[in-house]
Amino acid sequence: MSTHQPTPEGTPEVTAELARWIVSLRDADIPAPIRHEGLRTFVNWLGCAVGGARHETVDAALRALAPFSGPASCTVLGRPERLDALHAALINGISSHVLDYDDTHLRTIIHPAGPVASALLALAEIRPVGGDAFLTALIAGIEVECRIGNAVYPDHYDRGWHITGTTGVFGAAAAAGKLLGLDARRMRWALGIAGTQSSNLREMFGTMTKSFHPGRAAQNGLTAALLAEAGFDSSERVLEAPRGFACVMSDRQDWTEILGELGSRWEAGTNSYKPFACGIVIHPTIDACIQIHADADFQAADIETVEILAHPLVLELTGKTAPTTGLESKFSVFHAAAHALLHGDGGPSAFTDAAVAAPATVALRGKVHVRTSPDCHEAAATVEIRRRDGAVLRKVIETAVGSRDKPLTDADLDRKFLGQSAPVIGPEAAQGLLALAWATPTAATLAPLAAAGRGPRS
Amino acid sequence: MSTHQPTPEGTPEVTAELARWIVSLRDADIPAPIRHEGLRTFVNWLGCAVGGARHETVDAALRALAPFSGPASCTVLGRPERLDALHAALINGISSHVLDYDDTHLRTIIHPAGPVASALLALAEIRPVGGDAFLTALIAGIEVECRIGNAVYPDHYDRGWHITGTTGVFGAAAAAGKLLGLDARRMRWALGIAGTQSSNLREMFGTMTKSFHPGRAAQNGLTAALLAEAGFDSSERVLEAPRGFACVMSDRQDWTEILGELGSRWEAGTNSYKPFACGIVIHPTIDACIQIHADADFQAADIETVEILAHPLVLELTGKTAPTTGLESKFSVFHAAAHALLHGDGGPSAFTDAAVAAPATVALRGKVHVRTSPDCHEAAATVEIRRRDGAVLRKVIETAVGSRDKPLTDADLDRKFLGQSAPVIGPEAAQGLLALAWATPTAATLAPLAAAGRGPRS
Repeated sequence: MSTHQPTPEGTPEVTAELARWIVSLRDADIPAPIRHEGLRTFVNWLGCAVGGARHETVDAALRALAPFSGPASCTVLGRPERLDALHAALINGISSHVLDYDDTHLRTIIHPAGPVASALLALAEIRPVGGDAFLTALIAGIEVECRIGNAVYPDHYDRGWHITGTTGVFGAAAAAGKLLGLDARRMRWALGIAGTQSSNLREMFGTMTKSFHPGRAAQNGLTAALLAEAGFDSSERVLEAPRGFACVMSDRQDWTEILGELGSRWEAGTNSYKPFACGIVIHPTIDACIQIHADADFQAADIETVEILAHPLVLELTGKTAPTTGLESKFSVFHAAAHALLHGDGGPSAFTDAAVAAPATVALRGKVHVRTSPDCHEAAATVEIRRRDGAVLRKVIETAVGSRDKPLTDADLDRKFLGQSAPVIGPEAAQGLLALAWATPTAATLAPLAAAGRGPRS
Repeated sequence: MSTHQPTPEGTPEVTAELARWIVSLRDADIPAPIRHEGLRTFVNWLGCAVGGARHETVDAALRALAPFSGPASCTVLGRPERLDALHAALINGISSHVLDYDDTHLRTIIHPAGPVASALLALAEIRPVGGDAFLTALIAGIEVECRIGNAVYPDHYDRGWHITGTTGVFGAAAAAGKLLGLDARRMRWALGIAGTQSSNLREMFGTMTKSFHPGRAAQNGLTAALLAEAGFDSSERVLEAPRGFACVMSDRQDWTEILGELGSRWEAGTNSYKPFACGIVIHPTIDACIQIHADADFQAADIETVEILAHPLVLELTGKTAPTTGLESKFSVFHAAAHALLHGDGGPSAFTDAAVAAPATVALRGKVHVRTSPDCHEAAATVEIRRRDGAVLRKVIETAVGSRDKPLTDADLDRKFLGQSAPVIGPEAAQGLLALAWATPTAATLAPLAAAGRGPRS
């Protein structure tokens, strides 16, 4: 199905080659370290989805949409409700991102798992599949979305696109299509139907609609794969066509990022996991503030000024000076620094409506000044506080915890998982779910994990 | 809920002002001729949706997605299935556009009714409402999408966006939100959730995915209104923010097009209806060819050449020289001209897989040459055929039938409606449905019309 608009001379058949790779990928083609990173991604995503499941954002989405759900065949993680696969993909995607605590592909700031894993787990509940094939599809989906992101980043993101949604829909379609066993032609259609739904604006940051993005990308990508499976056709060159995704939504199109070293360079192997429940750009600052808190004893009133030196993205992305809600506070380096200095905390409890309104934090955040420099690495920050008694406390972070050079260990991920999910489903259920998650590669189906993800029956 | 990115000095509060207008609009605020045009839009949409309901595109979408439908409370026009409101909005939107026979806002080439009426009829089946309020919501939705289109056209369209989808989602959210009685704040959220889903690429033209666009816009806009109703918050300035819809998706942003003369200038009053089942740019050519066919008797073999002079958009949008499917043939001026010359026909039967493959048509389309000139008006075309016997037949169309200056009359709409819907639901049911459609302004609810739209029970 070709259209009359030619691509510029020399443009490779990006969509077709990528589809062929997805379709032909076998479990054994993925090196063990990459498979383990995929498993870490899944474990981290699962903990985030359970941890975010009781957020008011999820409540509101369910209030609006559960009345439209089809057969209740799929799990809503961390909750008693069951929904059809498309709605489950949406809600689990929202839950997994609502605390801004999920995974990050550092090169593009994509949060890869939300769209892909949310689509896949729901699909695996209605089309049972072994854990090995599940992981292969997950890694394929993440690889696809991150490579597409690399091809258009940074221009695409700078324009105002929320890249997790715009590329996530491709990842979800690729992963779901892989699990459905689509042939190469139907995989091209799935990518086409995904790409024509590619959307999501950064303007939504700080509102409930931000976490709607990975959820909707999961639902839309899954829809695309199901439509393609049923013979619903589409453009077969959505990525490279002059009126396709990359040319319409970006000034930069680097096809080598998508097709180069497919199967030997693994973007899915570079995924990272957050130690703090907010945008990654303020992690070095929070790391410094927590260390200062650990070193010294002080109250808000003892502090005269807080001076921060950080990368320019910090003010661009998290420059809200007076946030009023938990969601907004994730976009305020001022709040995050003040709270971390006072409480030594950067987890979900640091970004609640209550934490934002705490008088001591509000008072201290007004004393925070941020200076930025492009010479400051994105993983680095310097924080200096001046106390009323004249003492100066200074912490230089060169490589923040959770960054590429200082990743969370498997044991760190365990602690993070239990810290998030135990308050929602109870410590015992959380331990059981964690064990099932790590055992995914040898699972006969995902059904026991999905069931455990709901938490104990009331 | 504000973000830290300021709008440029002097930018009006576009989203807030538009939301206020939608919320406060009363039935009586809409002049009678505009209400009648809204009714004509609804009648035309209904006939198109019934007429397209048995297309293989609709079959494929139902095969894929009906298994996920919730409570079967809503009508799928022209079919026995019943679906939840969100899926009904999707499918009716696909049916109404799949034959490319629906309405057109000529200034932007938006097809306004697909997204708006498909969302509204489904919603009216689960939240009963009188015909008058229904029409008001319909007109409000159309006004919103066309004004937003005007603000970004032509740059937005030229980039490759399928403007029916990108603006239709706003129209659907506005209409559904009006019917739900959202307050101004929730209406701003509904527009925000709609805007962050704004998408659809022109690359999909010629495939099943083109008609997916108005359907998905209907479903996504309805989802946005339902989420906002349930308290799911969003940006409150999606239209004008630097990382909002207009700035991210267009280089042109003319806020006056959105806010100027609200309530006195009615874009909804400029809607038009197609006499031919394809893109409006080839209508003058088809009009000319049908008139030549009526004037003279010839076979394909009698014709040496067909010379067409038309507007440049004709080749840009419909330049496919060798279409292979009915859907592709709608984007081929060569096929459309050949078929109209041979059969005097530009209706749905001119754009089927069989019509495309007809040997005489294939032979004749190879003799069609198109010359374009920006001096040729979009509603005009000249067609000249040279016969083997030396005779030259020439037809100059200055104002094609169906164009702004030569609109279809109500009686034309009746004929078009019956011609489309009778083959699907039978002539008697079609007559009954048509009568109910024209009676919408005095209907107590839309339930009888929706029931009649399914056709006779088997």
